[in-house]
Amino acid sequence: MNRADFPVVYPIATRWNDNDEYGHINNATYFEYLDTAVNGWLMQVCPNVRSLPLGVVASVSCEFFAEVAFPDVLEIGIATERIGTSSITYRLAVFRLGEADVKAVGRFVHVYVDAANRRPVEIPPAIRGAVETLPVISAGN
Amino acid sequence: MNRADFPVVYPIATRWNDNDEYGHINNATYFEYLDTAVNGWLMQVCPNVRSLPLGVVASVSCEFFAEVAFPDVLEIGIATERIGTSSITYRLAVFRLGEADVKAVGRFVHVYVDAANRRPVEIPPAIRGAVETLPVISAGN
Amino acid sequence: MNRADFPVVYPIATRWNDNDEYGHINNATYFEYLDTAVNGWLMQVCPNVRSLPLGVVASVSCEFFAEVAFPDVLEIGIATERIGTSSITYRLAVFRLGEADVKAVGRFVHVYVDAANRRPVEIPPAIRGAVETLPVISAGN
Amino acid sequence: MNRADFPVVYPIATRWNDNDEYGHINNATYFEYLDTAVNGWLMQVCPNVRSLPLGVVASVSCEFFAEVAFPDVLEIGIATERIGTSSITYRLAVFRLGEADVKAVGRFVHVYVDAANRRPVEIPPAIRGAVETLPVISAGN
Repeated sequence: MNRADFPVVYPIATRWNDNDEYGHINNATYFEYLDTAVNGWLMQVCPNVRSLPLGVVASVSCEFFAEVAFPDVLEIGIATERIGTSSITYRLAVFRLGEADVKAVGRFVHVYVDAANRRPVEIPPAIRGAVETLPVISAGN
Repeated sequence: MNRADFPVVYPIATRWNDNDEYGHINNATYFEYLDTAVNGWLMQVCPNVRSLPLGVVASVSCEFFAEVAFPDVLEIGIATERIGTSSITYRLAVFRLGEADVKAVGRFVHVYVDAANRRPVEIPPAIRGAVETLPVISAGN
Repeated sequence: MNRADFPVVYPIATRWNDNDEYGHINNATYFEYLDTAVNGWLMQVCPNVRSLPLGVVASVSCEFFAEVAFPDVLEIGIATERIGTSSITYRLAVFRLGEADVKAVGRFVHVYVDAANRRPVEIPPAIRGAVETLPVISAGN
Repeated sequence: MNRADFPVVYPIATRWNDNDEYGHINNATYFEYLDTAVNGWLMQVCPNVRSLPLGVVASVSCEFFAEVAFPDVLEIGIATERIGTSSITYRLAVFRLGEADVKAVGRFVHVYVDAANRRPVEIPPAIRGAVETLPVISAGN
């Protein structure tokens, strides 16, 4: 996978304190980037997303291939692996702005739940319509 | 899995700003807990760990089963799934203090590298000796 | 000021990623400690605090005298400088567990507001009663 | 003070988890913005800043006038209040992109120290030259 596989990206600017004692972005901080990319993109494409059932994170993972560090500016590529009845599995890739190679790859699973009882509900149609426009990356990749 | 499978734990106190807008601990914050548990435990059992080759995180994941929130006090159970030549795969579980059920389960892979050239090296003997005392949880669990 | 001036403390465990590239706790992270100490202590002494008007932070500051770093365990001393009609000015001090000297000193101002219209209201009586039990440190110190 | 007083700004994009349980940016997070703005701007204007003596934060404060929240994009205005022998007092202001009114105002004091013994040294000439180009805001404001 490289930058060309991810036509949809969300920009992330790193912060000074994202760097840990090793002088690179701490692994936990990448998950702030992934979470922000998915939620930020959804807020752009579904302006009423906050009035819809909640997407809660059921699982998330990230593999790290090469370091990034403040003051790098990043782009988080957004794709889907699977769109189910109540859950969406996103595939996310971390790029340094203007570079083709993937620095890290993540998988992020949102389950839609009722805000009151937290039981699964169908993916809201406005969100389903939006994520169906994303590129699809098969599970083997 | 439950608390009885994790005789080795590292305590984590939540912070007010660990809660996100939904009033529960944000998914990214769990990775601060996992990273702190592994590195904090290693610093306890290998006092000279900072003079050894670096353990860098190659991949990390977490599945979320039930919410926790500030001001909960947590225990992170530490076990291994695989101890290789240059890498260690940890299995980590998040408990609320005094409770048996698992709130979240993580997998955390450290690869040991030379501090200067960042190429893989053998797991330092002091670290290998320490992690071999941890409980082993097989990959299927 | 030293540890003897702060009989009321809230414990804070540092995290691996609290350390920044300089190998010490980043300045911004101290404010997570101060915020957690005030809110955590209030939740202990006023169990119904979440049903009361909100305390919003109007201003906060911190002076740094000596470094702390992961894996230090800290104690945040809690005192007041001024209890007004709708606002409380806290004086907070950062100690390493078991040590007398102050590592950092903060000032933290909470203003109580109506949750709906965010206009100032009187400090809720249960909170006023609790903070009046704290030691008082005069503004010159 | 308003946006016109701050011709030099550093952009900050908020993140989903910057919002706390009240649905606005947590007070501690503003200090990540201030720290990133000062260090990020210095890295732009002094490309060799990492080879110079360290600027360590001696004190920092922030007053909050109006809320901001993810997904707001912010601009941090950068000015100085005082340039001493070994320390620089910055005045920083938080704006929402495209808006004139100040959401928060900070004061941030960097002291230059020797990297080895952490004793104060003179402000490096390259940094002094850069900060002398910043607008000056007098202490009363």
